[in-house]
Parts: sequence; C-alpha cells; structure tokens
Amino acid sequence: MEIRRENISSWLMNLQDTICAALETADGQSKFIEENWTREEGGGGRTRVIKEGAVLEKGGVNYSSVFGEAPEFLFREKEHGVGGQKTNQHKPRFYATGVSIVIHPNNPFVPIIHMNVRYFEMDTGERWLGGGIDLSPHYIFEEDARFFHQSLKEVCDRHHREYYSKFKDWADEYFFIPHRKETRGIGGIFFDRLGKKAEMTFEKNLSFWKDVGLAFAPIYTELIRRNKNRPFSKENKHWQLLRRGRYAEFNLVYDKGTKFGLETNGRVESILMSLPKTAGWEYNFVPKKNSPEEATQNLLRKGISWA
Amino acid sequence: MEIRRENISSWLMNLQDTICAALETADGQSKFIEENWTREEGGGGRTRVIKEGAVLEKGGVNYSSVFGEAPEFLFREKEHGVGGQKTNQHKPRFYATGVSIVIHPNNPFVPIIHMNVRYFEMDTGERWLGGGIDLSPHYIFEEDARFFHQSLKEVCDRHHREYYSKFKDWADEYFFIPHRKETRGIGGIFFDRLGKKAEMTFEKNLSFWKDVGLAFAPIYTELIRRNKNRPFSKENKHWQLLRRGRYAEFNLVYDKGTKFGLETNGRVESILMSLPKTAGWEYNFVPKKNSPEEATQNLLRKGISWA
Repeated sequence: MEIRRENISSWLMNLQDTICAALETADGQSKFIEENWTREEGGGGRTRVIKEGAVLEKGGVNYSSVFGEAPEFLFREKEHGVGGQKTNQHKPRFYATGVSIVIHPNNPFVPIIHMNVRYFEMDTGERWLGGGIDLSPHYIFEEDARFFHQSLKEVCDRHHREYYSKFKDWADEYFFIPHRKETRGIGGIFFDRLGKKAEMTFEKNLSFWKDVGLAFAPIYTELIRRNKNRPFSKENKHWQLLRRGRYAEFNLVYDKGTKFGLETNGRVESILMSLPKTAGWEYNFVPKKNSPEEATQNLLRKGISWA
Repeated sequence: MEIRRENISSWLMNLQDTICAALETADGQSKFIEENWTREEGGGGRTRVIKEGAVLEKGGVNYSSVFGEAPEFLFREKEHGVGGQKTNQHKPRFYATGVSIVIHPNNPFVPIIHMNVRYFEMDTGERWLGGGIDLSPHYIFEEDARFFHQSLKEVCDRHHREYYSKFKDWADEYFFIPHRKETRGIGGIFFDRLGKKAEMTFEKNLSFWKDVGLAFAPIYTELIRRNKNRPFSKENKHWQLLRRGRYAEFNLVYDKGTKFGLETNGRVESILMSLPKTAGWEYNFVPKKNSPEEATQNLLRKGISWA
C-alpha cells in the first residue's frame, strides 16, 4: 500500500477539525479563530487560536505543511543522520506536515497541555513520523497524572509493547529544563524518526501515530471536566504565573519545534502561540514548606512511574 | 604598567557599589538584597537584586568572577578565534569577571535598561574587554533617545573617534530579534574582544571601558527623573507587558551572556534576574493606527541616528 503525503496531510486537517470542535465544546464560551498563511519558500498553514474562553485562556491548534530546500541543521545534527553530508551538487528538499497544540487554561488547577504529530519526508526517499503528548500541571494531582499516563500507555500498548516505556523515558529526557534541573511537567510520551529504522513497518507506525493524535481530545477534555470548577486563590494564580515562566523558558531555550519553526522561516505568530498570555519570574522564589506548590515542585523530575 | 585581574575585579566591585547606591537613591523606597554564591568549577559572584521599589519593579546589579577550564564553545565559535584548536594535551583555562545590570521599572514610561562590562583572560596570555549599554523603552521619546545616545557618544568620543559609530552599529546588530524583525529597543553601544587586536593599547581601552561602566548611573537616573511621575493607563501597562515579552524572547533565544552563563554552569537565578516580573504574549497583536504604541513599534529598527 502506497501512503502518499497528501493522505497524511488531509488526515491531519481532519484531526485539527475534530480537536477544535472538542475543545470548543469543553470550553462552552469561546470559538477558535482561523488564519491561513503561506510560506515564501513553500507551503503554509492553517492556524487556529482561541482566547478568553471560559476554560481556555489562550491556545492554538495549528496545522502546517511546509516544503522546500532542507535547512542546514537537518544535516548538521548527527543524531538525525539524514542523507549524509550536504554537497554543492544536490541541495536536498524536505516536506513536513503536522498538527501542534498548546493550551493555557485560566484555572491554575487545569493543566497546560501540548501535543504534536508530525510527518517528515526527504527527497532522498526517507520519511519518518514524530510526535508526542505531554502535560504540565501547575499543580500535580496524582489521580490525574495516573489517568494521563495510563491513557497514553493504553494507546502505546495497542501497537507495540515497548513503545510506552521507551517514549515515556524519551519525554522525560526531552521535556527537561537543564538549567532548572527540573522537568517541564509530568512528561508523557515523545518520539521522533519513527519509521526510519523501523522495528515495525511504516504503515503500522502510522497507525500508532494516528492513535496518538486521536487520544488528545478525550484525555484533555476529561482533565478539564475534572478541574475546571475548582476554586482558586491569588496565591494559586501567582504560582501559575511562575510555572508559565518556566514553560516559556523551555520553549524559547530548548524546544526543537520552536527552533525548527524559527530556522525554517515559519510563521512566528503560529510558532509562538505556545507562549502563555502572561508569565512571571521572581528572583530566587522558593515554595513554602509543605505547601501544594512545594509538593508539585518535588514531582518535577524524571523517572516517576505514573502508569 | 602591569594590569592584573585582581585590580580589574576590585574596580568592578566598587562599580557595583556605586551603581547600587545611585539606584537606591533614585528609587527612594527599596534596597538591594545581596547574595554571595560560589561556582563549583571555580569562582563565584555577588548578586544584588532589588524588587518592589517605588520606581524599580525588579532588577539586578550583579558582579561575578569565574574561572576554570574554558567551555568548549569559546573554541568552537570562529569569530572568537581564541587559542586555535583544543587539543588533548592542554585544556585551556579562562578567567572572566564582570558586572551585569538589567532594570525593569514599574512605570511603562521609564525604560528598561541593560549594562554589562566584562573582562576575559585566557591562560594562553590573551585578554580582552567587552561590554555595552542599551536601552529598551516601552515608549520611545525622541528627546530621551537623543539624550541617551548623545551621552554614550560623548563617552566614546573621549577615547576614540570611531568607537561610537562602530559600537552603535554593533549594538543595532546585536540587540536584534531576527524572528520579529525588530530591535529590542533603541540600542546603544556594544563591543567585544576589545584589546585583542588593539587599535589602541590595552590600557587605553581599559580606560574607555571603565568610562562606560561609570556612565550608567548618571544616564539612567536622569531617565528615571524625567519619566517616573508620568501618569499611565491600563493600556500602557498592557503594552509594557507585551514589550517585556519581547525582552524575554531576546534574552532566552539570542543573548550570548545568558548562553555563556547557562553553559558555564553559572548561577541560574543570577543569570535570569534579567527576566521581568511579568511578561505577556498575545496572538498577532497589532498596535492601533496612529497610537504611541505604533510609533514606538515603527522605531524598533536598525540604523536610526539618535546622536
């Protein structure tokens, strides 16, 4: 069976529709606003943002499909190992399509969530899948963390018995802020270059990858339902502001998706929709002893088994 | 005349004292809090932060003096050209000392300011000076911008007739946010590796460099005096929040000082004191036609002659 990029691309546009509809229902107040954009070097996207919702303060569910001459860093980075050295004879071309989501809720007890599913293709014939879902609660509730990881584990287990454990560890490594020595949140799953050195066929990996995309809406709307009506204090909002500061730090300093977007002359407003409406920094802030903030801080580390 | 690192280091500590005293007087309410820290690999610093002032919402005037094995990126980057290739025989050692300042004021009509003066030394015998002062007004007032640049020009002109023009252009290039296609503010002066391929002797450059450090307090306290009592609206505060967002973007994505600090295992809280207490991002924000915000936005570009 031949899988063409057009099929993947239109599947992603449908996914974007489905997720936006589910989020609008969960919010009950705000609607997504759509903007279509084109990229000079090739391709474009369909950005959908929501703001001032009852639940969702600021968020984006973005589809894009870009192509053209492959940016140099796709070759520089050893870990990628694509197509060997760049030569003057042939400048390789790439095609990339994906859906990226970041949601910042109003209520500090509703977690920040991020999802990305992406497909890459090089004109050398190589192609691969990447993606993941991870959760950044301002306050970590054990039952929610377990539900989140258990749901992802079930998606993984349907396809490969090692995927959850492998991709959970990968998320722990990826969503880590080295200079803070803490994780961005409770992780989730993260994978890249799937289908290149496949343990499974590309088709089977594609089916796993689609299930990841489809898992987003039911998982996040459930977390919204559980937490959106919790009352919160000024102190809770203040802590949320600081956690958002860390989120911005991760995205601006380390996130490869952000880097890729900025280096491929992507649409800045679409890339940086991941940043919160407000964020804060305080010199040397330390949570109070035995506070819920301290409890959360202590759980921002790698290697916790939630599922 | 032999200039030893100890002399430079103690001169910098005095500069820190002088500046903190001047800023406390200008604020009239808050005082700096000092924290001393040591770095595992060698050296340490004296961090001084101020918060919740009448004028200064959040700021730091930090002294540091660090040494040890030179981090690899000092060799990687061609532009630096230090000591050639790293060999297994000899791991070069460095010594770096400096004062770094970032001040975020409460009133959106008082500008954000940044200053840095630094001294580097390699055990290969090379040594050089770097630094600069630049201004990021939330609202650009022409008379203030002219005063700021004119003051820096006078400092430069006392030492070398080409320094202002050269270092002003360097600041325009350095304090530029490529993905936003805008400058961080109205620039100022920026220089690095001064004294390596000296047009002037190291001693003469040192004297210029000291004058830059000494220029900070009179310039900034004058800008505070001019603007601290201007009344401001909610809209002005909102714009300030967005400008602070751009400031955070620059520092986290591009700033080499931040990068150097994080890569040399510097003290995170001291390095990231440059981040504002609050910052904000809005999807696709465009200032109103003919508003002061639009006027400022239009002036955030390279090559404007203020002096």
